[in-house]
Amino acid sequence: MKELSVSNLLGIKYLTSEDLHLIFETADQFKEVINRPIKKVPSLRDITIANLFFENSTRTRLSFELAEKRLSADVINFSASSSSVTKGETLIDTVSNILAMKVDMVVMRHPNPGAGVFLSRHVNASIVNAGDGAHEHPTQALLDVFSIREKYGDVAGKKIVIVGDIMHSRVALSNIFALKKLGAEVKVCGPNSLMPKHIESLGVKVEHNLVKALEWCDIANMLRVQNERMEHSYFPSTREYVQQYGINKSLLDTLSKPITIMHPGPINRGVEITSDVADSEHSIILNQVENGVAIRMAVIYLLASKIKNYDRSPAD
Amino acid sequence: MKELSVSNLLGIKYLTSEDLHLIFETADQFKEVINRPIKKVPSLRDITIANLFFENSTRTRLSFELAEKRLSADVINFSASSSSVTKGETLIDTVSNILAMKVDMVVMRHPNPGAGVFLSRHVNASIVNAGDGAHEHPTQALLDVFSIREKYGDVAGKKIVIVGDIMHSRVALSNIFALKKLGAEVKVCGPNSLMPKHIESLGVKVEHNLVKALEWCDIANMLRVQNERMEHSYFPSTREYVQQYGINKSLLDTLSKPITIMHPGPINRGVEITSDVADSEHSIILNQVENGVAIRMAVIYLLASKIKNYDRSPAD
Amino acid sequence: MKELSVSNLLGIKYLTSEDLHLIFETADQFKEVINRPIKKVPSLRDITIANLFFENSTRTRLSFELAEKRLSADVINFSASSSSVTKGETLIDTVSNILAMKVDMVVMRHPNPGAGVFLSRHVNASIVNAGDGAHEHPTQALLDVFSIREKYGDVAGKKIVIVGDIMHSRVALSNIFALKKLGAEVKVCGPNSLMPKHIESLGVKVEHNLVKALEWCDIANMLRVQNERMEHSYFPSTREYVQQYGINKSLLDTLSKPITIMHPGPINRGVEITSDVADSEHSIILNQVENGVAIRMAVIYLLASKIKNYDRSPAD
Repeated sequence: MKELSVSNLLGIKYLTSEDLHLIFETADQFKEVINRPIKKVPSLRDITIANLFFENSTRTRLSFELAEKRLSADVINFSASSSSVTKGETLIDTVSNILAMKVDMVVMRHPNPGAGVFLSRHVNASIVNAGDGAHEHPTQALLDVFSIREKYGDVAGKKIVIVGDIMHSRVALSNIFALKKLGAEVKVCGPNSLMPKHIESLGVKVEHNLVKALEWCDIANMLRVQNERMEHSYFPSTREYVQQYGINKSLLDTLSKPITIMHPGPINRGVEITSDVADSEHSIILNQVENGVAIRMAVIYLLASKIKNYDRSPAD
Repeated sequence: MKELSVSNLLGIKYLTSEDLHLIFETADQFKEVINRPIKKVPSLRDITIANLFFENSTRTRLSFELAEKRLSADVINFSASSSSVTKGETLIDTVSNILAMKVDMVVMRHPNPGAGVFLSRHVNASIVNAGDGAHEHPTQALLDVFSIREKYGDVAGKKIVIVGDIMHSRVALSNIFALKKLGAEVKVCGPNSLMPKHIESLGVKVEHNLVKALEWCDIANMLRVQNERMEHSYFPSTREYVQQYGINKSLLDTLSKPITIMHPGPINRGVEITSDVADSEHSIILNQVENGVAIRMAVIYLLASKIKNYDRSPAD
Repeated sequence: MKELSVSNLLGIKYLTSEDLHLIFETADQFKEVINRPIKKVPSLRDITIANLFFENSTRTRLSFELAEKRLSADVINFSASSSSVTKGETLIDTVSNILAMKVDMVVMRHPNPGAGVFLSRHVNASIVNAGDGAHEHPTQALLDVFSIREKYGDVAGKKIVIVGDIMHSRVALSNIFALKKLGAEVKVCGPNSLMPKHIESLGVKVEHNLVKALEWCDIANMLRVQNERMEHSYFPSTREYVQQYGINKSLLDTLSKPITIMHPGPINRGVEITSDVADSEHSIILNQVENGVAIRMAVIYLLASKIKNYDRSPAD
């Protein structure tokens, strides 16, 4: 059976394009599973997973939890607010203790960039990065690219523009890595103050003019505006942002062809996109959410396979 | 197989008396199940339920969660404090996202009256209202009336007085609807400042004198005093409330016959009822709690049946 | 089949030495289970357990939850912050309501010493004390002593010193009870201001000199320093504490023989012990954590046996 080149999912950066294809093919099988009447397989009855969320999250945590339960894994949840972490314990000690309870896999969201990479050097378990500061959010990128592949059949050669606060976005960075590895063309679009300096070294082009970017692309991935950031003076105000980088239906109607709209959620309706765009036939936002469960099932299944050397097919 | 006339449980107002009887007959079967050594049936292995609590609750959340687990449903929990709702996402978006993860049913408690009704118009899933502001709390009324039926064999013709803050009570409103649909006689008793203006249009009578109300009734359902409300000037003080509307054993001993005491919990001992009343042989307060699990199993089972067209009996 | 002399685990004080041996022999079997590929047994499919945590805890709650899930019990979690307890409900009412939902066992952490004992007199369910103020933490002591037995084969005759804030430590008290019942020799070591007055009446000796204590013992159990307590004037400062009662590798190297290091966690690295001690070959800290799950499975299994009169062996 084919297997991943890695034993953790720390970032898209560390995956090969073969890894990406393997994850997508496995997710195809799980997508079929979650559309059956009984949306569950007994595959991971021998795996215990701890979800460690050191930052709030709704959809990511629920999506992982559903993925784990549909694989029949045992699941324990831990969020930082109710934890001894507040008493000054180190991250390594917290996780080492949980692993000593015979936990096989850790899904972790952490505010510090590189927290997962750091942890993987010190503990012996499969780690899945569920978002580490402004660094990576690999399962989000996987579900985004899987949704593009689902709609277009292939990712290679597709033109994607990522719009918004590129500098602080782990979604943007992970998407860029995944799209480039699969041969897509990528542009980023947003205010100068939110654009990382050396972003072009990743093989993407910067386009400050939103209309030009939209005219060029097949797909626009609209990042969420962090309102709390907009209050800082070096940022555009929310109103300026909407005028220059927000998308509404009238704007899309001026383009020479329809484009596909994506968003990692949660949406600020009326800010990065208006409701008539979010809910239109060209939006695949809810498909992304649905695909998130299948992608996470695939990632967890494939990492568990490396621990347990399964010789059965995923959905058995 | 008989089925409900509705595909959501948004309020007792929307149920027929046939619906009520069907729920009670189904709950009879589940009550037998939860008194077996193994208190669990595999009935809903193909159903995933999300419990969305936008307001604190202990017993209602635990009761729903136990009901779901005893039906073998997959369960995910979400409470507002740890959610993206705080980031300004709309209720419809939050729920649409959860449903896109292939969740079949949503149990929701929300501070806004009508939140469940509103949601049911915009999303495609079974919704169970677990309390929406001062509007309805249908499963509480179902378990209350089921407990009366259990004690008296029948509800029709029974005389029930509901005592307390009628104006702000979803428990009172749902109880009134259920009791009237089943042919009970209902009076409400409480201070004028806590009595809704047009309450008699629901077919109930107002009785401000507690002793007269108790002398009349078979059953007194004592609402919880919301201490935080009592601080407002237009309310009686807690001390005045206890003097006029609190029940103690000496008061009950003056009545010409014993009456049954109910309370939706949590009890303020010494306020709406004293301990010698709460723990007396005429109190069915803990029976109400026990019946809550069976009633919630019945409601969830019957709504799931409408989705899945089961042709088996509930407890198989 | 042998069974416990008690039907609750309220404290080590209430157990016989036969009870301790029975728990350890049962934990031996469960330790074998949690090292199998499938770390789960169907033993308690007929038991529902509520974990009631009125105080924060990470490892204890997770350890109990894993133990319960590996026994296939149904589990509901409740923490005080999201509860009606804040509305003034009594502890007995909260627990009585949960039990009315057909819960068989309650695992409770509570800030008040004796909360479990108090509760056991008023409700009809198996209660497991998961820490009650400065009183007892029986499962911690069981896992500590089980870890000593695992390393040394026997506990009788072993010399253990418990170092730190003896006065406020439920871990110390439960350890003293368990070790004395099994024939170990126990000394306690710590600042005078943190030493209970009549501690010697429990059959332990006080040794204020850390080096002498370490030279004497086979095993040092290093209690966690509560930094928040150190701020009070009648305490030594953290810096003074480290100088007089902290252990580092250089200190251990001066002893005539190696000693085993234990810690209930979470560790303040550099305070009660340095990292080179915590992570050394003589530390059994992570073994304690691993054994915690097996011990809790054993306790829960044995208490459930008293309810259900099982006639099968634990790991079937």
